Amino acid sequence: MSAIIVESNTQEYTQTLGQNAKAASATMAKATAATKNAALKQLAALLRANTESLQQANALDLERARAAGLAEPMVDRLKLTPKVIETCAQGCEQLAAMPDVIGEISGMQQQPSGIRVGQMRVPIGVFGMIFESRPNVTIEAASLSIKSGNACILRGGSEAIDSNKALARLVQQALTDSGLPAAAVQLVQTTDREVVGHLITMPQYVDVIIPRGGKSLIERISRDAKVPVIKHLDGNCHMYVDDPCDVSMALTLVDNAKTQKYSPCNATESLLVAQGVAAEFLPLIGKVFADKQVEMRVCPQSRAFLADVPGAVLKDALEADWYEEYLAPIISIKVVAGVDEAIAHINQYSSHHTEAIVTRDHMHAQRFLREVDSSSVMVNTSTRFADGFEYGLGAEIGISTDKFHARGPVGINGLTSLKYVVLGQGEVRV
Amino acid sequence: MSAIIVESNTQEYTQTLGQNAKAASATMAKATAATKNAALKQLAALLRANTESLQQANALDLERARAAGLAEPMVDRLKLTPKVIETCAQGCEQLAAMPDVIGEISGMQQQPSGIRVGQMRVPIGVFGMIFESRPNVTIEAASLSIKSGNACILRGGSEAIDSNKALARLVQQALTDSGLPAAAVQLVQTTDREVVGHLITMPQYVDVIIPRGGKSLIERISRDAKVPVIKHLDGNCHMYVDDPCDVSMALTLVDNAKTQKYSPCNATESLLVAQGVAAEFLPLIGKVFADKQVEMRVCPQSRAFLADVPGAVLKDALEADWYEEYLAPIISIKVVAGVDEAIAHINQYSSHHTEAIVTRDHMHAQRFLREVDSSSVMVNTSTRFADGFEYGLGAEIGISTDKFHARGPVGINGLTSLKYVVLGQGEVRV
Repeated sequence: MSAIIVESNTQEYTQTLGQNAKAASATMAKATAATKNAALKQLAALLRANTESLQQANALDLERARAAGLAEPMVDRLKLTPKVIETCAQGCEQLAAMPDVIGEISGMQQQPSGIRVGQMRVPIGVFGMIFESRPNVTIEAASLSIKSGNACILRGGSEAIDSNKALARLVQQALTDSGLPAAAVQLVQTTDREVVGHLITMPQYVDVIIPRGGKSLIERISRDAKVPVIKHLDGNCHMYVDDPCDVSMALTLVDNAKTQKYSPCNATESLLVAQGVAAEFLPLIGKVFADKQVEMRVCPQSRAFLADVPGAVLKDALEADWYEEYLAPIISIKVVAGVDEAIAHINQYSSHHTEAIVTRDHMHAQRFLREVDSSSVMVNTSTRFADGFEYGLGAEIGISTDKFHARGPVGINGLTSLKYVVLGQGEVRV
Repeated sequence: MSAIIVESNTQEYTQTLGQNAKAASATMAKATAATKNAALKQLAALLRANTESLQQANALDLERARAAGLAEPMVDRLKLTPKVIETCAQGCEQLAAMPDVIGEISGMQQQPSGIRVGQMRVPIGVFGMIFESRPNVTIEAASLSIKSGNACILRGGSEAIDSNKALARLVQQALTDSGLPAAAVQLVQTTDREVVGHLITMPQYVDVIIPRGGKSLIERISRDAKVPVIKHLDGNCHMYVDDPCDVSMALTLVDNAKTQKYSPCNATESLLVAQGVAAEFLPLIGKVFADKQVEMRVCPQSRAFLADVPGAVLKDALEADWYEEYLAPIISIKVVAGVDEAIAHINQYSSHHTEAIVTRDHMHAQRFLREVDSSSVMVNTSTRFADGFEYGLGAEIGISTDKFHARGPVGINGLTSLKYVVLGQGEVRV
């Protein structure tokens, strides 16, 4: 399809992508594990063999980004270095080594009528993914799609279009080399934004949309989509330091949760401290934050415990701070009466992504796990662990803060559905 | 709330219902199994103790229905007989006797980092249910909602409003008698249709909508809803009689699937017969249908085998017949070359509800199960078994033909979500 046709009628173009994907999805759904794994291994080989040409394509994106005056950290995220390419190749091989869940039948039980009823795991069908920046997401999405027996339509950002095109060519070659339809993974070849609007309103072809990117993009897609959306808007994650707790463990965990990396969605943005341990804990964590130049947005009670910490940058927390995902060296801090107030505060202000309690009290731990209404709830560890790899999912396509279908890090299972399987020997309904 | 206020501002009224439900859902989510089961048993007791007053309320609906000239089968569906009330009471007791799945943690596994990761089953939160006619659905929905720890807002049909109000009063009494919030189950007290429009567009209060009723109602709700919808539009279910098969078993099963009841969504509407068994099977099933006055809409090939059946009502099938859910003594019949054509036909024309193959061929059975893209796929039994009770789910709130979240008969698990639970001993992310 030539670029001219593409630009002239995005509706028709997107429709064609949808039809192709739908047709390919039927073939993918019945493909054997061996065939899908062969495609993944071939993709790994092609990525390694084409490292040089991938970097040439990537150079076009990088040039454009620099010419447009993009900040160097943003340019960095665009880079397809040999190391990034090798990581992508290894990711494909890891997926190939994982067991195939498609066709798996679970819970088969005999019913009073004599029929046996269970559930078979099957692909969802076609998913559309809309993402920005990092071109390696193309390979992550494509490989998860192949492994899970789905077809997908990938719409990357315009800033990475040349890298994405080069990567998608290799994916399609790996598919056809293995006897699978090239249309099982299609990259949108145009940067026209209208395509997104069409893609999210084609329930006849697309079963689910997975957007990854800025909050406003995801809000817009959720509002306008006519198909289900797997998403999270933001990650206002909390660490709650309970009374009683191991204060030195709390120190290590809160430090890790806030400062190990500032930009991920599972980094902690808000710290709650039980009154009973505040006098001991807050000056210690205050020193850690002061040393790392993390600005603290504090409630009046916590200010009292932090005021004497040398070098501490303290600001009064506003109501808006309790909602805020900073993605930066800033943290909000509040002293609470205990586990009740902590749970109530979190359920009011959090984005339902990930929250952790540091405690020695078994009852508090159980209540926190049960009553905090977030996609991941943790005891005595760092919110930074909320991640598909760390959870043993093999890979993740995104994180969902919704309760419907998939919640938390979404791996292969989130891209599948369960249909009922019924085996009889001639039983009839009476 | 007086009827006058209700009618004057449906938006405000629905908003209040939503706020109340949201608040109640937090209490329901942490309620113990014992408390929820006590409420269910109390509801059963109240239903039995109030059989007479329920029938008085029901009499108002029946009078109105007859005055409006409703057909007697429709009036029948409205009736709250002592038998219907006793069945409702028993349903509540059965749910009370089932294990509580809320808080159940599954798949807890240790990861390389040392953290242990599993998933906890939790309620969805608030569901809205929109239904027509049979008032016993009020009790089915309320009891499933209580057992699954959700709150719900029920919007029954105007034809059953007096019965539904009387039933909902008993539900709220059972809740408060057991120390649970009355707002955990709220019946919409007005028949104003605007309420439905508000109810399906309040994602801040309502997590999922479950519509049950006519296809056009469900289509409208699906189109306009701003929250997920659990639904099926229709049930164009197929029986495929394969070559080779046990012809006498096929005869029993197809007879049961079509004629045991004509109105349920899991009744078979279309019969596919493999060419190799058509000459033997079609005259036999044709006689069954002729005796029961089931009209046959046939393809040219099947007409040849059915033409000589005494009393057979044959019509040429139009393209539209392959899509049709008759819910009546009518069936479409087509001869196909074999399992490939059967699967292709079903995937093209079916409503993805329930399909069954009658076969002796193991490979054909496996392919049918894997490749037919429907919410229930069956071997050697009747499509009429697609039902929550028959599947051992205890009860069902509806049937979903979508692939997202819940597929097939939806029981308690379909009203729940899984959140990740992470247990650590001070591990940090490196």
